[in-house]
Amino acid sequence: MKVGILGNGQLARMLALAGKPLGMDFVFYDANPDGCANVMGDGVYGKLTEANALKEFADGVDVVTFENENIPQVALDAIPVEKMYPPAQAIVTSQDRLLEKQFIEKLGIALPKYYIINSEQDLHDALQQNQGPLVLKTRRNGYDGRGQARIKTPQDVAAAWKEFSDFGLIAEAMVNFQREISMIAVRGKNGEIRFYPITENDHHDGILHTSIVQENDPLQAKAEDYTRRLLEELNYVGVLGFEFFDCDGELLANEFAPRVHNTGHWSIDGAEISQFENHLRAVCGLPLGDTRCEIPSIMCNIIGGFPALEEVLKIPGAHMHHYQKEPRSMRKIGHVTICHHDQQKLEEGFQQINRLITKR
Amino acid sequence: MKVGILGNGQLARMLALAGKPLGMDFVFYDANPDGCANVMGDGVYGKLTEANALKEFADGVDVVTFENENIPQVALDAIPVEKMYPPAQAIVTSQDRLLEKQFIEKLGIALPKYYIINSEQDLHDALQQNQGPLVLKTRRNGYDGRGQARIKTPQDVAAAWKEFSDFGLIAEAMVNFQREISMIAVRGKNGEIRFYPITENDHHDGILHTSIVQENDPLQAKAEDYTRRLLEELNYVGVLGFEFFDCDGELLANEFAPRVHNTGHWSIDGAEISQFENHLRAVCGLPLGDTRCEIPSIMCNIIGGFPALEEVLKIPGAHMHHYQKEPRSMRKIGHVTICHHDQQKLEEGFQQINRLITKR
Repeated sequence: MKVGILGNGQLARMLALAGKPLGMDFVFYDANPDGCANVMGDGVYGKLTEANALKEFADGVDVVTFENENIPQVALDAIPVEKMYPPAQAIVTSQDRLLEKQFIEKLGIALPKYYIINSEQDLHDALQQNQGPLVLKTRRNGYDGRGQARIKTPQDVAAAWKEFSDFGLIAEAMVNFQREISMIAVRGKNGEIRFYPITENDHHDGILHTSIVQENDPLQAKAEDYTRRLLEELNYVGVLGFEFFDCDGELLANEFAPRVHNTGHWSIDGAEISQFENHLRAVCGLPLGDTRCEIPSIMCNIIGGFPALEEVLKIPGAHMHHYQKEPRSMRKIGHVTICHHDQQKLEEGFQQINRLITKR
Repeated sequence: MKVGILGNGQLARMLALAGKPLGMDFVFYDANPDGCANVMGDGVYGKLTEANALKEFADGVDVVTFENENIPQVALDAIPVEKMYPPAQAIVTSQDRLLEKQFIEKLGIALPKYYIINSEQDLHDALQQNQGPLVLKTRRNGYDGRGQARIKTPQDVAAAWKEFSDFGLIAEAMVNFQREISMIAVRGKNGEIRFYPITENDHHDGILHTSIVQENDPLQAKAEDYTRRLLEELNYVGVLGFEFFDCDGELLANEFAPRVHNTGHWSIDGAEISQFENHLRAVCGLPLGDTRCEIPSIMCNIIGGFPALEEVLKIPGAHMHHYQKEPRSMRKIGHVTICHHDQQKLEEGFQQINRLITKR
């Protein structure tokens, strides 16, 4: 089985690391010749707007998947529908915050209030109507906190409008949440769905820092229900990450990503079958694997700079995942998962790794 | 860290799969340009007798290790001692069955009776003295049952002598054992030693078919004691596999291999840190990882032909390891590990995988 991946970053790399033991070969399509996945297979260099190059790439593989949902329509048109998983509708919906929210809403899933912003006046009106602070977001291409501005008072409007007026925009009501949580689920070609236990996630400045697996969480069933609706409506195939806010036990949808997800990285070390292997099993039409949490786990991103490897490996239950990317401020370059059955040792390991990882 | 491996087969491949998440790069030295490890790094093509090529290879990496102990002296001379782990003494000793047995004996470790065979008459004398059947073995280069003949009566002697008289030979007393077991252990550069739980192994025609992890086995402590003596005497660094016979609770040494070992493959899926990662940690001078069995496991080799992937992945707890080698009669081309906390489900999975794997 030859798997083509749009992208050659860490998600593509971890997919390939999971797929080699299944006997799969990998081809990575990316405009960047130095992606950290390339060591795991063949690199093909081209832009996502080059239809002919994409057609040739797709011709050479059995299935195409991707590590980033920001795929332009020209690429979706170039790759045969029957080879591309997850399906185009999931990509198109998730890459536009407005379409995404409308889609979620239509499925009867609760979500924070939001406002379509087409003018500076719209933003003033939204702020007044909302009676609380807003987050102004570009509809497209935002990630890791980029393309966002907080609007707390009418005085914030002009500067934010100036910065983002070139983009399609929405404003979201800021919600008072107790927790950010996410659900990682996988759906096979036969419609079977499996759910990982949810994680509690901690973001700083819009970048995920930590995901803590929540076994037997009271919101697990609700998160499964919501995610099932999404997967079935999209006739989805593959792994999907769905982020929520926990507001006093009420679950509000934030956003979903039609791909393996940073908050599911713990599953490499902590679950019976990882999100990466399960994504490949799904898109290749193979039976899904067990999503059970095998050992309580906490995942910590390495951002901006690497801790000393020998210090990380000294920590009981620590599993290093080095992406072999050049360190750069605010860049995710690896993660460490701490796994332990003993809750106290798990927390000690978490504290130890936090001391080693400087957030840059 | 750039790791050089002599060999580009499945052991090298699995070492590299374990090492990429640690941020390591790999170079494989082998005369075969089509080794299944090459996809995981750079291939360098040369024979183990080409001193200059080996020197250049060693110059280009931080540490050299290997997947096969049949390394000629010229290669050991070409690679700087301070870069080569496990150490040369372990290689030289283990690649010659006579030196190996003398070494084991010197450490006070029990082993089956053996006889040095330099002539046809020696073999007759040994058979008479032993008062039971013998296995005639070449001192060097035997593996997976090759280079062996059973000698039960004086009538067997002439044919065996004719077949093997060109080689240095020993004859071993065949022992009545209840179980074949093995110990996988790892020793770090600082002398720290960690032991995996022993496995019970099943060989057919000299080829390993199955390894079943034995948690809390009454012979664990004895096997650890014997293995510790070996590791310390050799000032060993890396993973070592030590095979034993269990004869009514008495442990008799069979042979050891100074490398990651087929009977330790279960550790990828069943242990906290696999033998492959621990070997790399050791030879790179990094802290050792936990060798605890995380989930009861049975490893089954795939020999000669692949089972259908979708059938394997249907089995609860099954983990596929496809080596992407060309199937050939009697050739190890993959393995499957079945992991399950429930003993009955573990055994059911074992039976299911056995039905899928045709022994060829």
